[in-house]
Amino acid sequence: MKVGIIMGSKSDYPVVEKAEEVLKDFKVPYETRVISAHRTPEAAADFSKDALKNDFEVIIAAAGKAAHLAGVLAASTPIPVIGIPMKTSDLGGMDSLLSTVQMPKGVPVATVAIGGAENAALLAVQILSTKYPSLRQAVVDYKAKMQKDIEAADAEVANSFDPVGL
Amino acid sequence: MKVGIIMGSKSDYPVVEKAEEVLKDFKVPYETRVISAHRTPEAAADFSKDALKNDFEVIIAAAGKAAHLAGVLAASTPIPVIGIPMKTSDLGGMDSLLSTVQMPKGVPVATVAIGGAENAALLAVQILSTKYPSLRQAVVDYKAKMQKDIEAADAEVANSFDPVGL
Amino acid sequence: MKVGIIMGSKSDYPVVEKAEEVLKDFKVPYETRVISAHRTPEAAADFSKDALKNDFEVIIAAAGKAAHLAGVLAASTPIPVIGIPMKTSDLGGMDSLLSTVQMPKGVPVATVAIGGAENAALLAVQILSTKYPSLRQAVVDYKAKMQKDIEAADAEVANSFDPVGL
Amino acid sequence: MKVGIIMGSKSDYPVVEKAEEVLKDFKVPYETRVISAHRTPEAAADFSKDALKNDFEVIIAAAGKAAHLAGVLAASTPIPVIGIPMKTSDLGGMDSLLSTVQMPKGVPVATVAIGGAENAALLAVQILSTKYPSLRQAVVDYKAKMQKDIEAADAEVANSFDPVGL
Amino acid sequence: MKVGIIMGSKSDYPVVEKAEEVLKDFKVPYETRVISAHRTPEAAADFSKDALKNDFEVIIAAAGKAAHLAGVLAASTPIPVIGIPMKTSDLGGMDSLLSTVQMPKGVPVATVAIGGAENAALLAVQILSTKYPSLRQAVVDYKAKMQKDIEAADAEVANSFDPVGL
Amino acid sequence: MKVGIIMGSKSDYPVVEKAEEVLKDFKVPYETRVISAHRTPEAAADFSKDALKNDFEVIIAAAGKAAHLAGVLAASTPIPVIGIPMKTSDLGGMDSLLSTVQMPKGVPVATVAIGGAENAALLAVQILSTKYPSLRQAVVDYKAKMQKDIEAADAEVANSFDPVGL
Amino acid sequence: MKVGIIMGSKSDYPVVEKAEEVLKDFKVPYETRVISAHRTPEAAADFSKDALKNDFEVIIAAAGKAAHLAGVLAASTPIPVIGIPMKTSDLGGMDSLLSTVQMPKGVPVATVAIGGAENAALLAVQILSTKYPSLRQAVVDYKAKMQKDIEAADAEVANSFDPVGL
Amino acid sequence: MKVGIIMGSKSDYPVVEKAEEVLKDFKVPYETRVISAHRTPEAAADFSKDALKNDFEVIIAAAGKAAHLAGVLAASTPIPVIGIPMKTSDLGGMDSLLSTVQMPKGVPVATVAIGGAENAALLAVQILSTKYPSLRQAVVDYKAKMQKDIEAADAEVANSFDPVGL
Repeated sequence: MKVGIIMGSKSDYPVVEKAEEVLKDFKVPYETRVISAHRTPEAAADFSKDALKNDFEVIIAAAGKAAHLAGVLAASTPIPVIGIPMKTSDLGGMDSLLSTVQMPKGVPVATVAIGGAENAALLAVQILSTKYPSLRQAVVDYKAKMQKDIEAADAEVANSFDPVGL
Repeated sequence: MKVGIIMGSKSDYPVVEKAEEVLKDFKVPYETRVISAHRTPEAAADFSKDALKNDFEVIIAAAGKAAHLAGVLAASTPIPVIGIPMKTSDLGGMDSLLSTVQMPKGVPVATVAIGGAENAALLAVQILSTKYPSLRQAVVDYKAKMQKDIEAADAEVANSFDPVGL
Repeated sequence: MKVGIIMGSKSDYPVVEKAEEVLKDFKVPYETRVISAHRTPEAAADFSKDALKNDFEVIIAAAGKAAHLAGVLAASTPIPVIGIPMKTSDLGGMDSLLSTVQMPKGVPVATVAIGGAENAALLAVQILSTKYPSLRQAVVDYKAKMQKDIEAADAEVANSFDPVGL
Repeated sequence: MKVGIIMGSKSDYPVVEKAEEVLKDFKVPYETRVISAHRTPEAAADFSKDALKNDFEVIIAAAGKAAHLAGVLAASTPIPVIGIPMKTSDLGGMDSLLSTVQMPKGVPVATVAIGGAENAALLAVQILSTKYPSLRQAVVDYKAKMQKDIEAADAEVANSFDPVGL
Repeated sequence: MKVGIIMGSKSDYPVVEKAEEVLKDFKVPYETRVISAHRTPEAAADFSKDALKNDFEVIIAAAGKAAHLAGVLAASTPIPVIGIPMKTSDLGGMDSLLSTVQMPKGVPVATVAIGGAENAALLAVQILSTKYPSLRQAVVDYKAKMQKDIEAADAEVANSFDPVGL
Repeated sequence: MKVGIIMGSKSDYPVVEKAEEVLKDFKVPYETRVISAHRTPEAAADFSKDALKNDFEVIIAAAGKAAHLAGVLAASTPIPVIGIPMKTSDLGGMDSLLSTVQMPKGVPVATVAIGGAENAALLAVQILSTKYPSLRQAVVDYKAKMQKDIEAADAEVANSFDPVGL
Repeated sequence: MKVGIIMGSKSDYPVVEKAEEVLKDFKVPYETRVISAHRTPEAAADFSKDALKNDFEVIIAAAGKAAHLAGVLAASTPIPVIGIPMKTSDLGGMDSLLSTVQMPKGVPVATVAIGGAENAALLAVQILSTKYPSLRQAVVDYKAKMQKDIEAADAEVANSFDPVGL
Repeated sequence: MKVGIIMGSKSDYPVVEKAEEVLKDFKVPYETRVISAHRTPEAAADFSKDALKNDFEVIIAAAGKAAHLAGVLAASTPIPVIGIPMKTSDLGGMDSLLSTVQMPKGVPVATVAIGGAENAALLAVQILSTKYPSLRQAVVDYKAKMQKDIEAADAEVANSFDPVGL
């Protein structure tokens, strides 16, 4: 079993890398690739069509602007596809977001926040945890750790001011 | 096993119903509820915290405007939560979309298109098909049927015009 | 020679039909098809890859929401692809527009206005007129006719008000 | 009596701090906390449910992106909740604003401008001044001081240009 | 004590009326007026400057488009001003919302959702409940009733589907 | 002296007509024309270049979508040009507004609200009143009448509710 | 005769200064002031009410965010008011633009582009040139100079590439 | 034969230059000019009217803000006009995009992405390849090279992680 992480351009890697880190933390196997819906359309179609038989159970696709990658991959595979809309320098990623999330009936893309690579990986883990019980516990632990982090931040920042009277 | 379908308001039901229909077609058990993140916050928290032990494996949450429902449910359960941003009469659903998809690091919501109830159900099926092999084949069949529908539409609409010469 | 008119859904036909009418007026051969980037991805890829050898010299693609059709067709053919972003009921077509026009470097889509089927056809005619001199004259005539129409509207609406003095 | 200042993430503190400064100037007691609607949902619910009995009379909540914090707090307390939508690096805070202000019927959040921490604090003071007469005068004085500041700026910047004739 | 409800145009009344209904339910005195920031600027300034001595403790202001009313009223009174951005026929109310909420430092307007007249009234009640204990209980009761309404909707809509096996 | 009222399409007339009515009320001479920046570019250039010698002192231009009319007219005349961005069926007029108002340095267009034909005419009157003293008084009277209308609306709608005690 | 240049905050001066420079170039008298619609509302009302008798013939008002300044000034004077929507750090000035341009019927603000201080001054000159013939010629000369500047830029940048044959 | 590259301002050249580079690579003759729709309107009209007889077969027009250049050029020539909406510092180029793409019926502008100078040039080449067979092959080769670049990026970035078991 593994997660496919596909980005449309090498320049997306600094963001996509954060998805790799999350999957590593969860000890979930992944394979990262650069495949472009527009520049290597056959590679995209082939990847998608063969994803299931190549042991992929979830695909994460990151692309920006008119971001067709996630939708193109979702078109040819029955496995769930998660889309990361990349931030863009002119429209802030609104173009990527709408191109990723507004999929027509029949071909959903599970879209996360603009630039949300960690959340894409976490969602992949949550999806896989449907099948792999050990991941479910890992997600519970992850949430417990997040809670501790916030509690630590709270301990650090919390303060009060109480003048005499009012 | 079952899918939880939660809507924030009874008025969302005509849209949400389409998710039920898709799940019925796939013979996937579901339970539909009206729970509001803001008006019944404890019910929302309880539903989420107990979702796993109550045999829910995926949750679909539909809400509009400042749509917090999916995020609130995702906060307290390790199972994947799918968000349907509802169309709104003033901003077209842009408010619901951003409130659903722009989740902070650590708590993803798998967001589908504005009003995309069918796709939310399909995504739930795809997620479950990670675990249930029969669903995987059903998704493949669904895609084949969609293809046939488009081919039928093509057969119906396709036409050509060929004047003599140019 | 012919123009390919591709729509992603049969429901786009009432708009797309206006492109057919323009091409008919210009006596430009066309072939209209329903092909979905997401529901019939192989048909889309095949159409695009074979477009040149099937005598298509321009493609017009109409699609809405996360409108990938024009981009997907442009990915696999060297001929120019014109994109019509379809109006959508929730976001007015802003989603279709950004998904069509914001194409990454290397794969342009010649995008016209939201719902601009006539202009897509006209642009196709202008592109073809690069090669076919008779079309160039026809475009000049079309512009002359437009001018006459505006002049007729002017004649009908023009009025003035001139009270005595000021 | 005190004002609760809650932020969803420690990184919001440099903005939130400006609210503290305003409250200090008005000698209004406050307690600042880091509590996340999504990462510490129980802490958020508990804070809100106990706010009244813990002597909070107003809550200020600052959060960004899909900013659910103010709404979640407002769900479980009868006291007024003021929301500060935080600026975001991709959408400028439009996501935070819509997630905070577009609350459904029954659970208002008193929303101030994106990043408007000072105004959130001032609004809290205005709300409290309903009850505490000394604060009312302090608000009047604050407004008088603002007026003086603008007058001073006017004195500094005002200039005129008057060439001979025209 | 009373709440001032000010609208910028008589045509806003069908929406504003819902604020009156909520205040009536809470037995909170109010006075409703039509005053325009742009067409009766002196009346607006006078209303605001005299609000406190005329026993107003909160002002609700509803206006659309370049909605200056709430801000103009907030400029000249120390009491809290709640702004209702009215839906507009062209931009859906985005213009009203930004004109109401994006107030500069020093003059907050407590903004509710586009068209959110009920919430404006509820927020006024919550603000007054800081001072009037009986209102606090009434808000608690209101929330309890909302919860019951959602529970009733849940009882009506809730259903489940459970095919044999999977 | 007269005001030029130019619309880009006959279909704009029902809105533009409201500008005529205002000018009639002020007894300001006008001449209304249909001239398109794109379909009759020479007529547009000619109108603009000859505007001054044809006794036009202000031009009002109404156009929708990629609304170039006001800018094109402003390019070739020294007299002030007022732009009315027309509401559009897909983007609500945001396209018309930005195309009209965002003029580059050197060629201003005095832009009024989307569909704001009355205000365009009023602005023309205000501009002309710089020169024609009788118009200045008429504007003052117009404002007085507006004030009376609002006062009448206030008299009609104003009401108060005052339950016993609180 | 003079032009009033009003800014809502001293921090607007670096942009507003460009308006001063244009007016100086045209030898048009002006008076620059810092007056805030929200922080010095009486000064704003007084300035506006007395503008005409203080020899102002046009007012330029620059403000950002919920930019009410131009509208507030326009409310109390019959002379034309030009609005400069200031760029904002979060929403780019969309908030300022909509708050300035979307004025209700009866109180127009002649709005220029976001940050368009030079154009505001030019528009003021064009308005004044209705009355002062020497300014009309100056505007014509200004346009001629702009044309020369573009021609110079063209001479500098223009280049061509012509490989042998095709 | 040649391509006309027109920019509205010298400051657009660093972006426009990328279009020149692409045309050079394809050995397509071009002529680059600075012509402003608003500051040199006659030059723009003349260029457009004479384009055909001056051997231009396609025009590329780059402009920002209320970007009228492409539309103005398209108005007076039968040859295809490609529009590059320039990024703007306040609205990110949304203004340029809508001003370029939302052209009314009868005068299409083939719009590419915000700042998409390379794609504008490529589209010009694709249009010319309708007539010039050698360019068609060059486009095919260009696409093959793009594919190789992505494959190289894939070879560089691709990696996988496979912990023992799950």
